[in-house]
Amino acid sequence: MRLLKELDPREPAEIGQELHRFAAQLYPICRSITGNGIRKTLALIQNRIPLQTVEVPTGTPVFDWTVPKEWNIRDAYIKGRGGQRIVDFQQSNLHVMNYSTPVRATMPLSQLRPHLFTIPEHPDWIPYRTSYYQENWGFCLSHNQMLALENGDYEVCIDSTLEDGHLTYGECYLPGRSTDEVLISCHACHPSLANDNLSGLAVATALGELLSGRDLRYSYRFLFIPGTIGAITWLARNRETVGRIRHGLVLTGIGDVGEFHYKKSRMGNAEIDRAVAHILRHDCESPAVLEFSPYGYDERQYCSPGFNLPIGCLMRSVWGSFPEYHTSADNLDFIKPQQLAGSLHLCAAVLDVLENNQRYRNLNPYGEPQLGRRDLYRSMGGESIGLEISARLWVLNFSDGGYSLLDIAERSGIPFSVISDAAQLLCQSGLLSVVPDERASKTALEGTPHYSNPTEVTSSR
Amino acid sequence: MRLLKELDPREPAEIGQELHRFAAQLYPICRSITGNGIRKTLALIQNRIPLQTVEVPTGTPVFDWTVPKEWNIRDAYIKGRGGQRIVDFQQSNLHVMNYSTPVRATMPLSQLRPHLFTIPEHPDWIPYRTSYYQENWGFCLSHNQMLALENGDYEVCIDSTLEDGHLTYGECYLPGRSTDEVLISCHACHPSLANDNLSGLAVATALGELLSGRDLRYSYRFLFIPGTIGAITWLARNRETVGRIRHGLVLTGIGDVGEFHYKKSRMGNAEIDRAVAHILRHDCESPAVLEFSPYGYDERQYCSPGFNLPIGCLMRSVWGSFPEYHTSADNLDFIKPQQLAGSLHLCAAVLDVLENNQRYRNLNPYGEPQLGRRDLYRSMGGESIGLEISARLWVLNFSDGGYSLLDIAERSGIPFSVISDAAQLLCQSGLLSVVPDERASKTALEGTPHYSNPTEVTSSR
Amino acid sequence: MRLLKELDPREPAEIGQELHRFAAQLYPICRSITGNGIRKTLALIQNRIPLQTVEVPTGTPVFDWTVPKEWNIRDAYIKGRGGQRIVDFQQSNLHVMNYSTPVRATMPLSQLRPHLFTIPEHPDWIPYRTSYYQENWGFCLSHNQMLALENGDYEVCIDSTLEDGHLTYGECYLPGRSTDEVLISCHACHPSLANDNLSGLAVATALGELLSGRDLRYSYRFLFIPGTIGAITWLARNRETVGRIRHGLVLTGIGDVGEFHYKKSRMGNAEIDRAVAHILRHDCESPAVLEFSPYGYDERQYCSPGFNLPIGCLMRSVWGSFPEYHTSADNLDFIKPQQLAGSLHLCAAVLDVLENNQRYRNLNPYGEPQLGRRDLYRSMGGESIGLEISARLWVLNFSDGGYSLLDIAERSGIPFSVISDAAQLLCQSGLLSVVPDERASKTALEGTPHYSNPTEVTSSR
Repeated sequence: MRLLKELDPREPAEIGQELHRFAAQLYPICRSITGNGIRKTLALIQNRIPLQTVEVPTGTPVFDWTVPKEWNIRDAYIKGRGGQRIVDFQQSNLHVMNYSTPVRATMPLSQLRPHLFTIPEHPDWIPYRTSYYQENWGFCLSHNQMLALENGDYEVCIDSTLEDGHLTYGECYLPGRSTDEVLISCHACHPSLANDNLSGLAVATALGELLSGRDLRYSYRFLFIPGTIGAITWLARNRETVGRIRHGLVLTGIGDVGEFHYKKSRMGNAEIDRAVAHILRHDCESPAVLEFSPYGYDERQYCSPGFNLPIGCLMRSVWGSFPEYHTSADNLDFIKPQQLAGSLHLCAAVLDVLENNQRYRNLNPYGEPQLGRRDLYRSMGGESIGLEISARLWVLNFSDGGYSLLDIAERSGIPFSVISDAAQLLCQSGLLSVVPDERASKTALEGTPHYSNPTEVTSSR
Repeated sequence: MRLLKELDPREPAEIGQELHRFAAQLYPICRSITGNGIRKTLALIQNRIPLQTVEVPTGTPVFDWTVPKEWNIRDAYIKGRGGQRIVDFQQSNLHVMNYSTPVRATMPLSQLRPHLFTIPEHPDWIPYRTSYYQENWGFCLSHNQMLALENGDYEVCIDSTLEDGHLTYGECYLPGRSTDEVLISCHACHPSLANDNLSGLAVATALGELLSGRDLRYSYRFLFIPGTIGAITWLARNRETVGRIRHGLVLTGIGDVGEFHYKKSRMGNAEIDRAVAHILRHDCESPAVLEFSPYGYDERQYCSPGFNLPIGCLMRSVWGSFPEYHTSADNLDFIKPQQLAGSLHLCAAVLDVLENNQRYRNLNPYGEPQLGRRDLYRSMGGESIGLEISARLWVLNFSDGGYSLLDIAERSGIPFSVISDAAQLLCQSGLLSVVPDERASKTALEGTPHYSNPTEVTSSR
Repeated sequence: MRLLKELDPREPAEIGQELHRFAAQLYPICRSITGNGIRKTLALIQNRIPLQTVEVPTGTPVFDWTVPKEWNIRDAYIKGRGGQRIVDFQQSNLHVMNYSTPVRATMPLSQLRPHLFTIPEHPDWIPYRTSYYQENWGFCLSHNQMLALENGDYEVCIDSTLEDGHLTYGECYLPGRSTDEVLISCHACHPSLANDNLSGLAVATALGELLSGRDLRYSYRFLFIPGTIGAITWLARNRETVGRIRHGLVLTGIGDVGEFHYKKSRMGNAEIDRAVAHILRHDCESPAVLEFSPYGYDERQYCSPGFNLPIGCLMRSVWGSFPEYHTSADNLDFIKPQQLAGSLHLCAAVLDVLENNQRYRNLNPYGEPQLGRRDLYRSMGGESIGLEISARLWVLNFSDGGYSLLDIAERSGIPFSVISDAAQLLCQSGLLSVVPDERASKTALEGTPHYSNPTEVTSSR
C-alpha cells in the first residue's frame, strides 16, 4: 500500500481547498466537551467516513475523573442601557466562557467586571476561556469593547443548560490485515477556532477517506473526542485493548503557515517518532522535533505512565507560541489550503513508512549478488551510480534480519520511499525475502477488537 | 531535610566574612603532611565540629606506601655577611622547602644555589616546594631576592626534625537514618596557601556545622587529611567499610573568583556527578564539568581502580591553571568572602539533591489525575500554566518507579528544588508514594560504622 | 614489535622515492580483472615479498557470480583515411575500453561514434571505462581528439582475446604468534592509473617487506586481487577461515596530495576503526572518518552481511570526488613520494596499535602505587608533571582488566604510542601484568590456515 501514490494524482491546491471548505463548514458550531455542538460536528464527519458515535452518561467514573454534566447553550448577551446587545453570542460563540452556568440578571458594571475576560495586548481579539470543572460564568470580549463600557447597569443573559446528559465522541475503525492498530486522535471540543482544531479534524477525516476500503497492513482507529476528559474516557473504556496500538498520532494545529513541529512520544524513540522525524527531515525545510513533555494535547493521556503508548503529536506552530492561539484571530483566514494539504501529504507519507517498514533477509548474503546480470546495475564500469542503485546496495547489505527499512533509510540518508521501492524490486528479483513480523502474527490471534460497552453506541454509518 | 532553606536566612556577606575569618585564623600555621602544624589545624576545626583525630605511627604500611617520619620545624633562615636574615622562615613558612632535613652550615653561594627555588616569571613571589619522599633541603624565595644575592659565604639554618612519630588526620562522622555515607574530603597539609586549601577546610567545616544535629537521610563523613598519603592511609584503615560510600566530594580551591569547575568521578555518571552538574547548570553562569583524569587531588586515590568510588572534585579555578597556584600569591587576598559563601551554598544545594533524590510511584498512573479538584491546577482553562504546575505534571508522568527526581529534573529542565517541592506536595495529596531505596534499607542492617584501629584514636570532642 | 621504530631511521624522502619508483615500474602494464597484465604485476610484487599466485579457472562458480573469461590484448587502434593511428593503444592502454571484444572492421564515423567515450568537461583527458560482464567494445579518447574526427570511414582494430582461462590473484601470508589475522587488501586490476591503485599496491608491498621476518602478534595476509570478482572469489575459496580475520584494511588511492579519509567497517566501532581514527586524530591536520556505506572498494564484499568483517578502507582523496579519478590524469605526476611515504607511515602506526593493544591489570589497585621510590615520578613536589608520568597514571588507573590500551589512549587523549610505552615500563617495574587475550589463545588451537583448493596454487617464492 502506498498512500502517497494514491494522493499525488490530485492537485494539492484542489485537496487544500476541499479541506478548507470542510473546516469552514464546521467553524460556526459552538462545540464544547459535551453537548450538541460536538454531536453536530461528528454528524458532519460521519457524512465522509464510517463513524461510530459513543454516548457516555454524566457521572460515569473514568479513572480519577467523572464524566461531567452536559452543557448546551442557545443564546447569550450583555445588553446596555438602550437594550442593544453590546456583547452577542450570535456574533461569536467565543463571547461566552465555555461551560458557563445559566445567568439572567441586571447588574452594575462593578459587579459584572470580574466576569469579563480580555486580551489587553491584542485589544481587538476575543479570548477563548473555559471553566469546565468549576461552576462559573463569564463573557469574553475584545479589550476595546470593555474599555468602551460605561458605568451603569447591564442586562446579562446566558441561556445555557448544565444538566445530566452524555459525553459524546466519535470513533472510526478501519480494519487491516493485522489487529495491531494505528491510532489517530484529535480533539473536537473547541468552538470557533480554526487551527485549534478544525485543521486536525479536517485532515484526520480526509486521511480516513483515503484509507477507507484499502488493503492495509495495520488496522486504523480515528478518534474525534473532547480534549482531556474525552481521551481519559476512551482510555477507561478500552483499557484492555490499548495494547494493540503500535503507533499513533495526535493531530492538532496543522493548518497555519508555521513549520511542522513534531513532539515525540514519551518513549522518545518509538517507530512513530523515527518515522515522522525521517519524513520531516527529507520533506521539510526547517522542521522541529521536540522532546516529549507531559503538557500539551491528549498525548498527555496516551503517554501517561500506566499506558505509555507510542503516540506523538504533530503540529505546525506550537500551541501557546503564537499570539492568535486561543483567540478569535484563530479564524478561517489563519488556516490555509496549501498548509492543510501539506499536512495531509505529510501524514500520508508517515503512514506509508509505517505500512512498509519491515525487515528483510538478503538471500545472497556472501558478497554482493551480481546485480548486472539481473539488469539492476549500470552496465558500463568506471562511472558513478545513481540513488536507485545505491538504495539497492544499502538494502542488500543491511537486510540481515536485524535492520528494518527505516533503519536502513536512517543509516543511508536515503528517503524511505526510495529504500522501500528498492526492497520491493529486490524481492521481485528473488534476492530478498520479508522477515515475518513476530508481534503482528501473535496479536492477530487475539481476534477483532470489541467495545467494552457496545450498548452505549448510538449510531454508526 | 532542606539545607538551603536553613542556610538562606543568613546574609551571604555575613556567611562569607565568617568563612574568611576562619581561613585567616588557619593561615599562619606551617602545615605539612605530618607534624604539629596539621595538629593545630585540626584542633581549630574541632572547636566547631565534632572531630576525631587519628594518629598513625611512622612505619605503618599502607598499601604500597609506608607512613613517613614526622616532620616539625621551629625556625629557618639564610643569613648574609652582616648576620641579617636574608631569607626568613618567620616571615613566610613557604621559604623552607616542606620536609627539609635539618641543616646548620656556612657555605658559599655556589654551593647554596642548587638548594634555592624561585619563579623567574613572577619575580616577587615565593614558590611552594616539597620533598616528602626524598631526603633533601632547600629554600624557596622570590626571584628578585635571589638575584640580589652576592657571591660569598652564607649562614644556612633549618631547625627542623624528621623523626619517627605519627601521621595525623581528622574525621567527623555525622550519623543519619541510613549507614550509607556521603564523604567530604579535603587536604589539610599545605602551609600558608589560602585557596589551596584553607578555602576547602573552611567550607567543609561550615558544612559540618550546618549538618550537625539534623535528621539526615545519609550519614556524613568529613575527612581533613594530608594529601595523597593521608587518603591512602585512611583507605587502608577503612578498606572494609568504604563500600558504604554512596556519594562523595573532594573540596579544594573554592575561594578564588574563578568560575566553578567540577571534575567527575571515574565512573563518570555517578549520582554525585549528575547532581553537581545539575546544580551548576541552573545556578552558575558558565560552569565547567570536566571528565575524570587520574591526576589532581585525593580523588586520585578514592577513584583508584580497586575502589572506584563515586567521588568527584569541586574546584573554582583549576589547580595549575592560574599563576598564583603554589606560590605566596595564593594568600588571603586571593580568596574572597563572596566566593567562599557561594561555594558553601553550592555544596548545600548539592547535598539537598542527594538527600531528596528518590523514586516515587504515581498512584493514578492511567491518564492524568484530576489536579483541579485538589486545587493543584489553575482553575480557568485556555491560559498557560506556570512552572509549579508543570513540575507536578512532570513528576506525575515520570513517577513510574524507574525515574528518580533527579532524572525528572534533568529530563524536564526544571530545577531539582522545584521538582522536589512538587513531589512533596503530590505525596501530601495522596497522589504519589515513595519507592523504598533498596540499597539503603539493606545497608542499614550492617550496623553503625566502626574504626578498624580504635585504640589509635587519641581525642574526640 | 614497534614497526614505526623500524621505519623511522630511514629518510621519508628516500622511502617515498622508492615507493614511487615501484609504482612507475608497474604503471605501463595493461591490467584487467584477468589476464597477463595482472600476472606481470604480481610477478613484480613477488620480487619483493613472498607471494603465492592463485589461478582460478573460468567458469568456477563463486557465490552468486561466475569467474569470467580471461581477457588479453596485444594492440588496438583507430586509423584515419591516411592510415595513420589516430587513437593508439600503444600510447595509452586507457584508449581501449577494458574487456573489449576483438574487432577488426572499417566503418563510417556514425557507426563508430556509439563506441567512443570522452569527458567533455576535461577535453584533454582520456576516460577509463570497462565492460566486464556485458560483451562490448569501445575506445576512450580525449574529447578534443573526438571533435577533430571528420566524417568518413575509419579502420578499427582491437586485437584482444576473450577466452576460457583463469582469474589470477596474489596472496602473501606472514605468520605471527597467533593465527588471528590482519588482512590488507588492494585491487590490482586497473591499467595505467597511478593513484587508483598503484599507490595501494606500492604501499601494501612495502608494508609486507617491513613485516617480513619479524616476531608478530598477529598473522598478516596481503591480497592483491582484481576488484569485486577477485574479492568475491577469494571469499568463496576461504569461507571457512575468514573468521580468523580480526582486523583489516583495504588500501586504495593513497598517493595523491589529499588529506586522509578513512571509511569505517560496517560494524562501525571495530578495533580497526578506532585504531585508524586514533592515529589520524593525532597525526593528521584535518582527516575525515567516514561512516560505512555499501558502495566503494572491496570492503563492499568483506562487509557484506554474511561476512561482516572488521575491515575498513583507507584513502586519501575519496574516489569520484576529484576530477582526475578514472582518467588519464591519474598518472605518475598525480601521486607524490611524500604522500606515499606518509601513507606507509600511517599504516605502520595503525599496525603498531593493533600489535600492542592489550588489556593489563594494575597489581596495586588500591590507591596509587608509590611511583617515586621506583623512579617513575618527578622527585620534587609542587610542580606539574609531564606527559610520560601522566600516561603512567592513566595506565595504572584504568588497567582494571576491562580497559585496553586503546581505550585508555582514547579516554586520556594521549597518543597510543606514549600509553603503550608507559604500559611497558610499568610491566617492567612489576606494577602491571598483561591480561591474556581470550580469543587469541582459543583460535590458536585451530591450527594453521590452509587453502581450500591448494592444487590450484601455481607458484610461490
